[in-house]
Amino acid sequence: MYAPTSDLGERPVARCNVLGAVPFSEDPDFLNRPYLTESHRKTLELVRMWMIAAGMSVRLDPLGNLIGRYEGTQANAKSLLIGSHIDTVRNGGRYDGALGVMLGIECVEALNTADRRLPFAIEVIAFGDEEGSRFPTSMLCSRGVAGAVTEEALELTDEAGMSLREALFNFGLDPTEFAKAARDPGQVLAYVEAHIEQGPVLEAEDLAIGVVTGIAAQLRLKARFTGFAGHAGTSPMRLRRDAIAAAAAAVLAVEDICIRGAPDLRGTVGRFLPSTSAYNVIAGQAEIGIDLRASSRAVRDAAAAEVRQALEGIAEARDIAVEFSVVQDLPDCPCDPRLIQLMSDSVEAVGVRPFALVSGAGHDAMAVSGITPVAMLFIRCEQGVSHNANERVAASDVGLAAHALVEFVHRLALENT
Amino acid sequence: MYAPTSDLGERPVARCNVLGAVPFSEDPDFLNRPYLTESHRKTLELVRMWMIAAGMSVRLDPLGNLIGRYEGTQANAKSLLIGSHIDTVRNGGRYDGALGVMLGIECVEALNTADRRLPFAIEVIAFGDEEGSRFPTSMLCSRGVAGAVTEEALELTDEAGMSLREALFNFGLDPTEFAKAARDPGQVLAYVEAHIEQGPVLEAEDLAIGVVTGIAAQLRLKARFTGFAGHAGTSPMRLRRDAIAAAAAAVLAVEDICIRGAPDLRGTVGRFLPSTSAYNVIAGQAEIGIDLRASSRAVRDAAAAEVRQALEGIAEARDIAVEFSVVQDLPDCPCDPRLIQLMSDSVEAVGVRPFALVSGAGHDAMAVSGITPVAMLFIRCEQGVSHNANERVAASDVGLAAHALVEFVHRLALENT
Repeated sequence: MYAPTSDLGERPVARCNVLGAVPFSEDPDFLNRPYLTESHRKTLELVRMWMIAAGMSVRLDPLGNLIGRYEGTQANAKSLLIGSHIDTVRNGGRYDGALGVMLGIECVEALNTADRRLPFAIEVIAFGDEEGSRFPTSMLCSRGVAGAVTEEALELTDEAGMSLREALFNFGLDPTEFAKAARDPGQVLAYVEAHIEQGPVLEAEDLAIGVVTGIAAQLRLKARFTGFAGHAGTSPMRLRRDAIAAAAAAVLAVEDICIRGAPDLRGTVGRFLPSTSAYNVIAGQAEIGIDLRASSRAVRDAAAAEVRQALEGIAEARDIAVEFSVVQDLPDCPCDPRLIQLMSDSVEAVGVRPFALVSGAGHDAMAVSGITPVAMLFIRCEQGVSHNANERVAASDVGLAAHALVEFVHRLALENT
Repeated sequence: MYAPTSDLGERPVARCNVLGAVPFSEDPDFLNRPYLTESHRKTLELVRMWMIAAGMSVRLDPLGNLIGRYEGTQANAKSLLIGSHIDTVRNGGRYDGALGVMLGIECVEALNTADRRLPFAIEVIAFGDEEGSRFPTSMLCSRGVAGAVTEEALELTDEAGMSLREALFNFGLDPTEFAKAARDPGQVLAYVEAHIEQGPVLEAEDLAIGVVTGIAAQLRLKARFTGFAGHAGTSPMRLRRDAIAAAAAAVLAVEDICIRGAPDLRGTVGRFLPSTSAYNVIAGQAEIGIDLRASSRAVRDAAAAEVRQALEGIAEARDIAVEFSVVQDLPDCPCDPRLIQLMSDSVEAVGVRPFALVSGAGHDAMAVSGITPVAMLFIRCEQGVSHNANERVAASDVGLAAHALVEFVHRLALENT
C-alpha cells in the first residue's frame, strides 16, 4: 500500500516542464515538438538519461520510439508496456503525452529504488508520433509497434515535401527496417497508459485520477450545403436559399441531438466553411465538419443517422441540396475488463474513489490494443484545457497517479506469479 | 409615344457583351475590370467612340469619369446626368453598371437621330469606380462628381500597394486636379440611372422594368462571440461554451427577425469566421458579419436593436461573451418624388405596369443625390443573378428600358420648357 502523498508527482511534472521549451521545442515562443525533428532528438537524449537513471536499458526502435527496459525476475520474460507519446501538436501543452512517459519512468524508478523485480519485464515507451502533426496520419508509432503500419506509409510527406522515409533516414534510422518496430504479441503481457484527461469530467467530480473503460468510437462526417448565391440587399428573405443559414441550423441540430442523447455522446461542429466572407453576399455553399463520438459504435451510429435525417430535413425545407461524406470512422476501443478492475482497485488503494470514464479523445492505447489488452489511467487537468499552452496539472494529482500505477504493477505481478 | 419593341435593346446588350471579354477585362477567363487599369482604358477608348457616334462631345474628368455631352437648345444649359459605372467586380457580370451607360448612349442616339434638342443638355457619365474592387472605398467616382471626395482618398492603396494618386497619374490624369471632378449643383438639373435589378423581384412580378423609389439604408454589424475552446471528444455537451454554436443560433435569429419584419427588411449573415477549422476542436471564438437593410433607417435600426437583443440573449444563455461593432452605416437615399412620378408615367407610357421597388443594393445615384434629385429605373435580370458570369438580361426588356428613358427625357423636357 502507498500513502497518497505527492512525493512521486513533483519529478514527472518538473520533467515535463523542462521539456516544455527550447531546445525541446522547434519554436522558442510556444511548444512544438513534431516527430523526427531536432527537438525530438534532443528530447530523446534527455529522456534516455532519465530512463537509465531509473534502472533501465534503453534502445531506439526503427520508428524512433525510445524504449527503456526494466528486466523482470527472469530474462526474456513477457513485458508490461507502459507508454505514451513524446510529440506535441503545434502550440501544444507540456503534459499531453509526455506526462505518461514520465510516469512510466517514475514507476520503474520506484521499483528499482525498492529493488523490486517482477515476474515480467516493464518497458517504458516514448512513442515518436501520436498527434500526427508532421505527417498526415496519427498514432503512426504505436501502430508501428502493433504491426499495423505498411510500407506505403514511408511515402507520406510532410508540409515541406519530405517523405517519412527520408525523415527516418535523416534521423539516423534505417527506413527499410520499419517493420521491426512491431512487437511479438506473444512477448507482451499488457499495455498501460497514463494521460491527462483533456476534459473537465474529473475536475467536475473533484477527483485526481480516473479509470478509463475505453476509447470512444469516432465518426467524422462532412456535410456540404449548396443553395444559391445572391445579393444581400436585393434578395427578399423568402426567396433565399442561403447555405450559411442551412449550415447554422445544422450546427444547432447536431448540438440538440447530442444533448438529448446518451450521456457519453459528443457531437461537435468545429469546422464551418462558407463559400463567402463578404457582408453583402448570400452564401451559395457552406461545408460543416461534424465529429460524433460515443463509447459504443452503436450509440454513435444511431446519432449519426439522426443527424443525417435532421440535416436532410433542414435542407429540404430550405430547397437546398446536402451531400454527406465520411471523413473518418474509428470503432470504439474498450479497455480490458480484468485490467479495468485492477486499475480501479489500485486507484481505491491510493485513497481515491474509483471513477470510471470513457475517453473521448484517441490515444496510443487504441493502436496497441491490436496486440495486447490495454488499460488507461486519466489525470485531472485544469478546466480540461489541452492542446494549449495553458495545460495544467497538479503535482499532487500526478503523485496519486504514480502511486496508483505502482500499485497496479504490483497487483498485476500478484496475478501473474 | 414609343411602341414597346425591342429595337433599342439589341445594341446596348451587344455592346455590353463586347465589353465582357479581353481586352476589356484584366483576365481572359472571367470579367474583371477594376478602376484605372489597362482594361478600363481600353473600355473608355471604345465607349468614347460610341458616345461620339451618338452625337456627343466627350471628355475625361480628373477622376477618370468619361462624360459625353449632348447639347440642349441653348449652350450652357443645365444638364440632365444619365450615368452608371463602367467598372466590375472580379468575376463580375457584363450588365452590372455598363448597361446603364449603354442605355444613356442609346437614349441620346435616339434623340440625335430624331434631331431633337431639349431645353437642357444631357451628359452620359461612365463612372470609373463604383464597386470599390481596387481601392478600399466604393462609389469613389460618383462621390467625386458630387464633391464628396477629400484629398486623403488619394493615399488609399490597392492590394499591390499603389496609391490612388499614383494610379491616376499612371492613367495620364493629374491627381492634384481631382477636386475639379465635382460638378456645380447649379448646373445640374437631375440624375437618372438605369441598372439591372440584381434581385428577383421584377422576375417574380413578370415585369421587364420597375421604378426605384429609393435606395435602402444599410448597416453592417460585426458580432464576435467568445466562448471557451475545448476538445470535441472530451468536453461533455452541457459543459461547453461553443462559439460556433452561439454564432449559428445568431444566424438563425437574424433570419427569423428579418422574415417576421417589414417586407423591405433584409438581413444576411454572409460572413462566418470561426477561430478553428478542425473537426476535433470546440471553437473558442466565432465572428459573424450581419448586413441589415430597409427602405427606411428607422425600420433598419429597429431591426438592428432587435438583433442585438436576440444575440445578447443567445450569448447569455450559453455563458458566452458577445461584442458588437458597426462596420458601415449608410442612411437611406430616397429618389425624388417628382422624378419617381415622371418615371412611373414613362414606364406606363411604354406599356408596362408601373411597379415601385426599393433598391437593396447601393448605386452611384446615392452619391449623386448629394447635389441633385435622382431617379432610377431597374431592369429585370435572370433569377436575380449578379456579380457573376451568369448575369443575363433580355434585349426586349432592355429595349423597354431605353424607350422608357427616352420617354422620361421628353416628359422632363415638357416640364422644363
